[in-house]
Amino acid sequence: MADRYANFANSGLGRTVVKRLGLPDPPRLRRYRPGDPVADGPVLLGAAPGGRLAEPAGKLLESIGVQVVATAAEGARHAALVFDATGIVDSTQLRALFDFFHPYARSLNVSGRVIVLGTPPEATASAKEATAQRSLEGLTRSIGKEFGRGVTSQLVYVAPGGEQSVESTLRFLLSGRSAYVSGQVIRVGAGAAPAPADWAKPLDGKLALVTGAARGIGAAIAAVLARDGAEVIALDVPGAGDALADVANKARGRALQLDLTAADAPERLAGYLAAGPHAGIDIVVHNAGITRDKTIARMDESRWDSVIGVNLTAPERVNDLLLERGLIKPGGRIVGVASIAGIAGNRGQTNYATSKAGVIGLVQSTAPLLAGKDITINAVAPGFIETAMTAKMPLGLREAGRRLNSMSQGGLPIDVAETIAWYASPGSATISGTVVRVCGQSLLGA
Amino acid sequence: MADRYANFANSGLGRTVVKRLGLPDPPRLRRYRPGDPVADGPVLLGAAPGGRLAEPAGKLLESIGVQVVATAAEGARHAALVFDATGIVDSTQLRALFDFFHPYARSLNVSGRVIVLGTPPEATASAKEATAQRSLEGLTRSIGKEFGRGVTSQLVYVAPGGEQSVESTLRFLLSGRSAYVSGQVIRVGAGAAPAPADWAKPLDGKLALVTGAARGIGAAIAAVLARDGAEVIALDVPGAGDALADVANKARGRALQLDLTAADAPERLAGYLAAGPHAGIDIVVHNAGITRDKTIARMDESRWDSVIGVNLTAPERVNDLLLERGLIKPGGRIVGVASIAGIAGNRGQTNYATSKAGVIGLVQSTAPLLAGKDITINAVAPGFIETAMTAKMPLGLREAGRRLNSMSQGGLPIDVAETIAWYASPGSATISGTVVRVCGQSLLGA
Repeated sequence: MADRYANFANSGLGRTVVKRLGLPDPPRLRRYRPGDPVADGPVLLGAAPGGRLAEPAGKLLESIGVQVVATAAEGARHAALVFDATGIVDSTQLRALFDFFHPYARSLNVSGRVIVLGTPPEATASAKEATAQRSLEGLTRSIGKEFGRGVTSQLVYVAPGGEQSVESTLRFLLSGRSAYVSGQVIRVGAGAAPAPADWAKPLDGKLALVTGAARGIGAAIAAVLARDGAEVIALDVPGAGDALADVANKARGRALQLDLTAADAPERLAGYLAAGPHAGIDIVVHNAGITRDKTIARMDESRWDSVIGVNLTAPERVNDLLLERGLIKPGGRIVGVASIAGIAGNRGQTNYATSKAGVIGLVQSTAPLLAGKDITINAVAPGFIETAMTAKMPLGLREAGRRLNSMSQGGLPIDVAETIAWYASPGSATISGTVVRVCGQSLLGA
Repeated sequence: MADRYANFANSGLGRTVVKRLGLPDPPRLRRYRPGDPVADGPVLLGAAPGGRLAEPAGKLLESIGVQVVATAAEGARHAALVFDATGIVDSTQLRALFDFFHPYARSLNVSGRVIVLGTPPEATASAKEATAQRSLEGLTRSIGKEFGRGVTSQLVYVAPGGEQSVESTLRFLLSGRSAYVSGQVIRVGAGAAPAPADWAKPLDGKLALVTGAARGIGAAIAAVLARDGAEVIALDVPGAGDALADVANKARGRALQLDLTAADAPERLAGYLAAGPHAGIDIVVHNAGITRDKTIARMDESRWDSVIGVNLTAPERVNDLLLERGLIKPGGRIVGVASIAGIAGNRGQTNYATSKAGVIGLVQSTAPLLAGKDITINAVAPGFIETAMTAKMPLGLREAGRRLNSMSQGGLPIDVAETIAWYASPGSATISGTVVRVCGQSLLGA
């Protein structure tokens, strides 16, 4: 691939596009391996005066072995720049962002991290504060496009009362687990989130169901949840046979063959879960999904129906029955898999984009109903992820999808899986109703 | 420009990108001229069973001279496909969208219109209905990318109780006024919106203030508001001199020279408006804005401060004082100008993107405070608009900005102005707190 990309990057227009869009040679991204420290170097922590998060965040980071510094000498290198912007209550105070990022912008390691902590605009005390807090999004998204070299940049809105619940999110964002997550706005809600006994195995004792688990992203999800301590039920259609058994074996879990679009599938799944030793389920990942691309003018009805059925209606029906039967346990997690196509739309994918926009709707509309039940529901929205499916794309398309993001490369299935594992963590109990893209800050958006 | 674009479009990667992204030769967009009919041909109106909008929308369209048809013969051409999707209450019923759009997808004229009417997900009766309604966004955005030929595609969420308030929006979206608006989600709130006495002059009797009016987009806004009947005060900095006077003269309005970042500027403006024959103002358009691009590592503090000051703090201060003094009249309209950079972020524009994300925050946080005062506040977010500023961009960048959208071309200042005029209309009284992009459905997004 590299030569074709290089040709484009060195063509007349290509050179300018590459320069403007900040597309350097793709860096090798730092990804998490068990035993890695949370941060691979010192974290520079700054704050606007009056912020409520710098102190708890600093204490937290130090307690988990991160070297936190408040100022740095010329030439010092950092694993992350973390800025508490919650003290900014009007637009004139946004200057504190410049004062922090300007001198240190070049101090980040490859795959460094920028994290700006803010207050959700809707939870502020005044329109002026809400405006200033909303501004932060422009900064963090621009930094993500500007810094390059595998640096990620996020805005984390922490609701008042959520100060003690940021650990799972800071661990995720600082570590190599979030290698391909950038330009995101993440919301941590108020309330307490329990800390897992062992952050290396945060899902110990949890039972997780992963649909579409036989290959690609689903297989990676099963592996990562198992790595993090969960017992995994790997579900796929009958016919996925050996591949599914292989995934289940590697995860030391169980394989379950079931076509979720069958009329009796939710009932059969509920029966299976109710009869198991766990008598219910902790984590449900609705990963199963299909594409049947055609323009709507050329599409036949079966392409429409099957895509909506598998990607949207099946997860709805499963959720409904499992929730109705009380089979999703307290502390439960439901995670949907949306898509950048569900956000931005895509030519030839009216059916797929409709279904994936629906997954976002499912998450947003169900979260409030689960708020009192200690169950969260969230979604990931993958961008260009290297799978057998994308390997079959025409070369030019594939290269465009790979390069038109702040990482200048496609993501890996494990990147999606890590994001789902972060949602699944006990420490993410106050995160619900959110959609986080795993897209390397793709240029494509709504 | 055309030859360079053509070179790219015919290169190896370019061919594929162009095909995939639906970038045909740029069509000539239909733009509004006084006297034009709302629609330039028959409008095909469909509905899912049980919808609440097809009937009032159909009656409305017929009452204003639009030929509305419910079915069409093979080969019939349409100016618009309008579909009432409010009857869709779960994902299995999304099939109605396919049934409507599949047979008629190729029946649209150049610059045809697709409008899907839905219920805001948060105003639905169930999570299932919310999910299905949220799905509509994936459909309309995909259609916008798929249909090409200058066709625009929008999703209009009409709150229950807003059925009689869609006229200004349907007129805007069907007409050439919305030539460069596509892929948008527009929200019409509940309640009644007054109809102007004359839809050709909806702003008759209104006094409008336009900042940054001396050139480019600001000059177009002044001209369009005047065309629609408003008396215009064209404001710009001292030194804009002749250009400003020219704009004011053409609009048969007044010129006002004032540096809005001066400490006493809001006070002086308030005094000017209070002393005028109108004793207040109806429409305030905060168009004045500057760019001072540099990466944050290379930026000096004056570039940060001046951009935040002009683009964000000045509009805040003006709003505050005019509202405090009661100088924005009942029926008033405040319109901000954000930017696609404020949504997506941009390399070299941390300052600009922060300020423009702030404009979005300003609109979202102020709207609820004005809800009881019969004043709306909204924003436009321009994408690539052909101005003296963009003409100075390097060629490759300019071409990329021009082409990477569903219209395959840049927008014109008048496209931004028309969108502002739609917000300003008495008929848009129930639209507040919204941001509509004028970007030809740019691929760039958050």
